[in-house]
Amino acid sequence: MGCTLSGLALNKPHSNANTTEMEIKVQELEDIANKLRVLSIKSTQASNSGHPTSCASMAEVMSVLFFHTMRYKRCSPRDASSDRFILSKGHAAPILYAAWAEVGLFAQKDLLNLRKIDNDLEGHPTPRLNFVDVATGSLGQGLSVACGMAYVGKYFDKASYRTYCLIGDGESAEGSIWEALSFAGIKKLDNLVAIFDINRLGQSEPTAFQHDMDIYRTRLESFGFNALVVDGHDVEALCKAFHEASQTKDKPTAILAKTYKGRGFPSIEDEENWHGKPLGSKAEAVIEHIESQIKNSGPNTLVPQKPLHEDAPEVDISNIKLSSPPNYEKGKEVATRQAYGTALSKLAENNPRVIALDGDTKNSTFSNAMLKTDADRYIECFIAEQNLVGVGIGATCRDRTVAFVSTFAAFFTRAFDQLRMGAISQTNLNCVGSHAGISIGEDGPSQMALEDIAMFRSIPTATVFYPSDAVSTERACELAANTKGICFIRTSRPGTAVVYDNDHEFEIGKANVIKSSDKDQILVIGAGITLKTALKAAESLSGEDINVRVVDLFTIKPIDKDGIIKNARDCGGRIIVVEDHYAEGGIGEAVMSAVALERDIIVRHLAVPRVPRSGKCDELLDMFGISASAIIKAAKEIKNL
Amino acid sequence: MGCTLSGLALNKPHSNANTTEMEIKVQELEDIANKLRVLSIKSTQASNSGHPTSCASMAEVMSVLFFHTMRYKRCSPRDASSDRFILSKGHAAPILYAAWAEVGLFAQKDLLNLRKIDNDLEGHPTPRLNFVDVATGSLGQGLSVACGMAYVGKYFDKASYRTYCLIGDGESAEGSIWEALSFAGIKKLDNLVAIFDINRLGQSEPTAFQHDMDIYRTRLESFGFNALVVDGHDVEALCKAFHEASQTKDKPTAILAKTYKGRGFPSIEDEENWHGKPLGSKAEAVIEHIESQIKNSGPNTLVPQKPLHEDAPEVDISNIKLSSPPNYEKGKEVATRQAYGTALSKLAENNPRVIALDGDTKNSTFSNAMLKTDADRYIECFIAEQNLVGVGIGATCRDRTVAFVSTFAAFFTRAFDQLRMGAISQTNLNCVGSHAGISIGEDGPSQMALEDIAMFRSIPTATVFYPSDAVSTERACELAANTKGICFIRTSRPGTAVVYDNDHEFEIGKANVIKSSDKDQILVIGAGITLKTALKAAESLSGEDINVRVVDLFTIKPIDKDGIIKNARDCGGRIIVVEDHYAEGGIGEAVMSAVALERDIIVRHLAVPRVPRSGKCDELLDMFGISASAIIKAAKEIKNL
Repeated sequence: MGCTLSGLALNKPHSNANTTEMEIKVQELEDIANKLRVLSIKSTQASNSGHPTSCASMAEVMSVLFFHTMRYKRCSPRDASSDRFILSKGHAAPILYAAWAEVGLFAQKDLLNLRKIDNDLEGHPTPRLNFVDVATGSLGQGLSVACGMAYVGKYFDKASYRTYCLIGDGESAEGSIWEALSFAGIKKLDNLVAIFDINRLGQSEPTAFQHDMDIYRTRLESFGFNALVVDGHDVEALCKAFHEASQTKDKPTAILAKTYKGRGFPSIEDEENWHGKPLGSKAEAVIEHIESQIKNSGPNTLVPQKPLHEDAPEVDISNIKLSSPPNYEKGKEVATRQAYGTALSKLAENNPRVIALDGDTKNSTFSNAMLKTDADRYIECFIAEQNLVGVGIGATCRDRTVAFVSTFAAFFTRAFDQLRMGAISQTNLNCVGSHAGISIGEDGPSQMALEDIAMFRSIPTATVFYPSDAVSTERACELAANTKGICFIRTSRPGTAVVYDNDHEFEIGKANVIKSSDKDQILVIGAGITLKTALKAAESLSGEDINVRVVDLFTIKPIDKDGIIKNARDCGGRIIVVEDHYAEGGIGEAVMSAVALERDIIVRHLAVPRVPRSGKCDELLDMFGISASAIIKAAKEIKNL
Repeated sequence: MGCTLSGLALNKPHSNANTTEMEIKVQELEDIANKLRVLSIKSTQASNSGHPTSCASMAEVMSVLFFHTMRYKRCSPRDASSDRFILSKGHAAPILYAAWAEVGLFAQKDLLNLRKIDNDLEGHPTPRLNFVDVATGSLGQGLSVACGMAYVGKYFDKASYRTYCLIGDGESAEGSIWEALSFAGIKKLDNLVAIFDINRLGQSEPTAFQHDMDIYRTRLESFGFNALVVDGHDVEALCKAFHEASQTKDKPTAILAKTYKGRGFPSIEDEENWHGKPLGSKAEAVIEHIESQIKNSGPNTLVPQKPLHEDAPEVDISNIKLSSPPNYEKGKEVATRQAYGTALSKLAENNPRVIALDGDTKNSTFSNAMLKTDADRYIECFIAEQNLVGVGIGATCRDRTVAFVSTFAAFFTRAFDQLRMGAISQTNLNCVGSHAGISIGEDGPSQMALEDIAMFRSIPTATVFYPSDAVSTERACELAANTKGICFIRTSRPGTAVVYDNDHEFEIGKANVIKSSDKDQILVIGAGITLKTALKAAESLSGEDINVRVVDLFTIKPIDKDGIIKNARDCGGRIIVVEDHYAEGGIGEAVMSAVALERDIIVRHLAVPRVPRSGKCDELLDMFGISASAIIKAAKEIKNL
């Protein structure tokens, strides 16, 4: 029965040559869309939760993408040369799962295990599934990731794969979407297609713009997109639009699909109060209605198209090394942020897949070192930290690159949700945050990171480095480049003295004793600027016969629990932690956690106790109680406890 | 010398009636702009840091706003009926300070104390200064705050004051700006003017769009603005544009000011590499050059205009009470998120200035209760949490409202930077986050808040409530409404049994013993869903003659240090903390901090140890080690320690 559109060569996204013209099998694509609807209903019925109406609005888009437009290996979903697909509106997971079942990656009956604890078909997609690159479900994040993938495809891989991102209209209110759209336009990502599923209805009420397609079109055009308004339930129109996208050079395309939530569900379609609800007692009748429209209920004759070219290069991102060892003079003051720049260059020299991203702070974070090493491997993301992190995550997907993302540590708070989702995404991303704490001085509290350790520690896959000198900074970067999960490296604005030998061997989770004697009474743990104040205090206290051991943790997470306990016991169970951070969630509480089950170990905690202010670094350290004199005072108090 | 434009009635922002026509004194406004430039140079020379070139580009805008367009009381900067001004590009603080000195709020010589530790003229503006409503300096946040102020002005105060927000072109890359722009358009905030200082140069390189004014214009128009492109150094053009803004109904206006960074600084103007640098040795010559253009170097004849109408109503937001006490049946299961909705209604009934904001989750957070009480006091912010929080902050400025802002607790991570800045802003904002932890079940990790306590604890002005039942939730909301700083109330998705009498009196920082005996061996601290599992475990353990005391903290910050220590000592120094949160920065570490200086108190910590997954609530509690059986196991281990 399938009517066909002969004569149209609609399916050549990558090349005009060497392609057999493929006709659009409209009826079959419509049938598949309806099959996906039925599967979405059945799986959410089985789980008794989920979002079938949000799936229904995008059924034709999924059918066209998975059975007509995209080129990919259905049995090898993370193939390097395959097209990418990101479901930004992650709550429509059931139809994503249905699509992969329908192309044959796994059995359709598995869909009935949706949301069960012993199954990876979760409520929202996560990379526990091999066909999911990043977790979605916190809205508005998918497009940044897609931008990262598309950027890598166009500029690093120089390959023909394309990236498709499906975005809900509700989530298009997120600023992160507009950061990503702007980035895509600026970077001319013509291998990227953003599909907006404009189904008019949000969770709790209609969206602000409902079906005013003109608002979406003018916005997208002003953001540098080729914006195509289409009937999102017309498979032929969708095929044509995707074809036009493939032919559009130097700008990304947006498919603005006018759709209906619950499309095809009688008395539910386009109605409010159906968000996130399975169809319950109505399911049977709806399924019957939809199935009555399916002409070919048997196996599909359409199959996904394989990549035209296997042109994504092989990449090796293992065993990345500094191109030369640290080379510093002990005692000399060097800012760790500067050492970061040096390390970045050295790693980039060693491996061509090391890249750097920044948000217009490269001359402060020293990520501008990459401009000298290889300017093509620096991605300027401008002042848009959510997108900065999202692009970084996307760039690392399928192990295509090792990304170092930098900005002021305080401004990573802007991307906390992206980092949170990054952990669920099993992302390997390196974040380098400069301008830690009150030690930055005159710029004042808005620029001071005082909660960044708390934030990064709370990310379950995170490794948190806080190097105190230039040598350890270079090694932290080297270790981060080879460490899975999210790595955070906290750097300081002012110089700190080099305390390590250039050949010192660093380990994640291994603290280093910087100063000790066999009659130590107090263990002082500092990091960064407070290692400096701790050493100064120790020096001064030794003149008063108070012996202080000073430890540099190197990584705050994981923390060297055994090392801390051993050294604390050597010091009579007395610990002072001094940190340039608020009291909550930072080094102090990390240390307390390490010793929580030890009777006889106490922790005195010096941290920034309230919102600080502008001033000189030393004045601030004094005013907020983390200077050498504050440590000396605390030491005298604790030594008798 | 001042040339005048007679015949133009340009200065009637509030009314066409009862206004004396005021001529634009072009030369004097130009002189004032140059005076502000000189003061900005001098203050940054004195501090030897700061951003004079970023001030210079906006000198004419400031001159026109402060000496022509805005209506305000120069000696009473927080007057309710005065126009508001937000400097979103906070690094241009020196010219903001110069403007207020120039209008006579304080002596110009004070400007030379810029950035000194004993002076409130900080590197970026904070409300330590009486003419600053909110801190700025983390870019892209000012417009949301301005939207909150404008929304209150138009819809709650129904007053004639207007709100002006000055935004840098660099920061206009922030998604939060586009969230705010969209909000302003949707809400038809015609009392809002967004001024973009398009000076072409970012911190580390030119902005993406440099002086392509058309991109800005089409973007702004597509976001519902009356967008006016003007020469930002032409005071007459600026006056006209602000006048047009005042006459524009039902849509906000954007003034797109084409400017030059370092304007008027010979050999510095429009040059790169001058961001954030005082002029150093060039200062003297530049000042001389600028001063040579000032015709009237004596006192200004122009003075700020007072508000036309004193029409902002008097507001009393003190002593807000629940309109009726909690009324629950003990033992009955009620979700705390539902109790939040009830409390919100009761508070709104008691005080007409209690308002609610949400990001399209109102049917999940139960903030939709406000729709029944008074729909006009509910602000739908759609799915844009940065703006949601920013609008909330703006709405509370000058004590005009008591705002309750709600979304899923996980999604407050999206606004961490806004909350961080909110603390510096001395904001009084109530954040209510639902869907805490793995107990939400099948939706999976993207929707589970597991780092929200860590985040809110790290905010220095925060009070963190974690009510475990409906009674305590209502009282938490009542206390929050009357508590300064940022309040966070964490609510749960599933029902939890009512454990308190309806007349129980709650205090911030006071824990409540829920179960105890005089032979308790272990203190178990739970909250929300884990109070439930703790009580279940205690019940079971008592059958094995292991006596457990159960405490409900009520507030995690401040924490009841004395109560914890006393109860822990009663229990042999053994504490188990069990929380539906990651291990870092949550209740466990808060408790560890409370007992850190106590030898002989140990803490066993049960928390979610890794990224969770979809599943049923009880299955997840078991799998991730925070169920009753996990507590029972831990209790048996710890009782001999």
